Amino acid sequence: MKVYGRNVLKEILENNVNVKMIYFSNVSSKSIEKLIELVKEKRLPFTIANNRILEKLSNEKKHQGVVIDIGDFEYKDESIIEKMEKPFLVILDQIQDPHNFGAIIRTSVAAGADALVIPKNNSVKVTPTVVKVSVGTLFKTNIIEVTNIARFIEKIKTLGIWVYGAAMDGKEYFKVDLKKPVAIVLGNEGNGIRENVKNKCDDLISIPMKNNVESLNVSVSAGILLYEVYRQNENFNS
Amino acid sequence: MKVYGRNVLKEILENNVNVKMIYFSNVSSKSIEKLIELVKEKRLPFTIANNRILEKLSNEKKHQGVVIDIGDFEYKDESIIEKMEKPFLVILDQIQDPHNFGAIIRTSVAAGADALVIPKNNSVKVTPTVVKVSVGTLFKTNIIEVTNIARFIEKIKTLGIWVYGAAMDGKEYFKVDLKKPVAIVLGNEGNGIRENVKNKCDDLISIPMKNNVESLNVSVSAGILLYEVYRQNENFNS
Repeated sequence: MKVYGRNVLKEILENNVNVKMIYFSNVSSKSIEKLIELVKEKRLPFTIANNRILEKLSNEKKHQGVVIDIGDFEYKDESIIEKMEKPFLVILDQIQDPHNFGAIIRTSVAAGADALVIPKNNSVKVTPTVVKVSVGTLFKTNIIEVTNIARFIEKIKTLGIWVYGAAMDGKEYFKVDLKKPVAIVLGNEGNGIRENVKNKCDDLISIPMKNNVESLNVSVSAGILLYEVYRQNENFNS
Repeated sequence: MKVYGRNVLKEILENNVNVKMIYFSNVSSKSIEKLIELVKEKRLPFTIANNRILEKLSNEKKHQGVVIDIGDFEYKDESIIEKMEKPFLVILDQIQDPHNFGAIIRTSVAAGADALVIPKNNSVKVTPTVVKVSVGTLFKTNIIEVTNIARFIEKIKTLGIWVYGAAMDGKEYFKVDLKKPVAIVLGNEGNGIRENVKNKCDDLISIPMKNNVESLNVSVSAGILLYEVYRQNENFNS
């Protein structure tokens, strides 16, 4: 996979992501020069090319003079959860939009979630757009792909993780105790969480809305719910 | 201004927005037929046109078979704030992206904010895209345009409104008492709140971030902060 952007490269370097090749624009600038220095220090393979080639490689005009070939993206295996001390997971049930996925990754990393979980079918995947929208924060977390979300939920419940699904008909989210190992499930942009997945959740939580607003953008909902987990655990520890 | 989309029309009808003309697609569907019935009941002017005309009128392919001419959009005057019982305002200091503006409007209405305030210069305006992204919730709230945000903040402070700016170097947002008349100030996507605006705020609030994440998307930040206002006031009343 070929990803692009300066902040994306910064995160790749900081998190020691495997790199096959880094392509820099031949239109030099101070920030590009700085990045080249960093890449040299790390002894990573790089080359200089013109913007037309960068555009072709990245399939994107706004590549910011940097394209990085990271090979195949590696999803993590769900077994990593067993090693987590107090897991905080984000489960995305058939999210479709790469902008939503990227924004949710960024928020998840900031809120301290340990991993994001997506189903193998009918779901957005990790793409260059997702990486870009996440501002490279994707490389700071774990993305787990599972065959069956409902079965996955059953399994993590046996590990002591409490699973909360975001739905219209749930309890007000700030009245639920989230000071424990938790997984927050967010549903598809149009249809929400599937019934068979909902049924597996320990409980449903809702964001109350005034003025008859029916729903929020899923990345905004994610922000509100994931930061409630942060807030409760922060206040608890202090 | 010509706005488009079925949910947008629904909100226009529900909120009795002035309408100059409604254009429906001649490719009929049940949901379009239902909307035509509603428009007839309200005795609003409408016409049937082919999709090419709708596309030209709306400058958009995804018009969903409905384009509505609402004439000039009417910004509200800041004097309306004086009549609010316990004001809850959202001030946007030079936000540029219509998708962010639309998403923030949607969240503001859901969280119960009374108005959104934008500066006349160097700011996104109300456009058809903003209306669409807000899913028509824009018609349920007040958008106020002011000449000078810093001076506006000075003025509302004399009305007893506490003004909190979202910034990196503020207090953790959930440790600040927001159970009073408040205005939350959100800054530009790249640069945050301008210094002269920051200086006028009563206090600065921050969203703490783990894993060295530097910032969140401004519409996600808005969701977290505006729902903290909701949460605190909800818990207080009950």
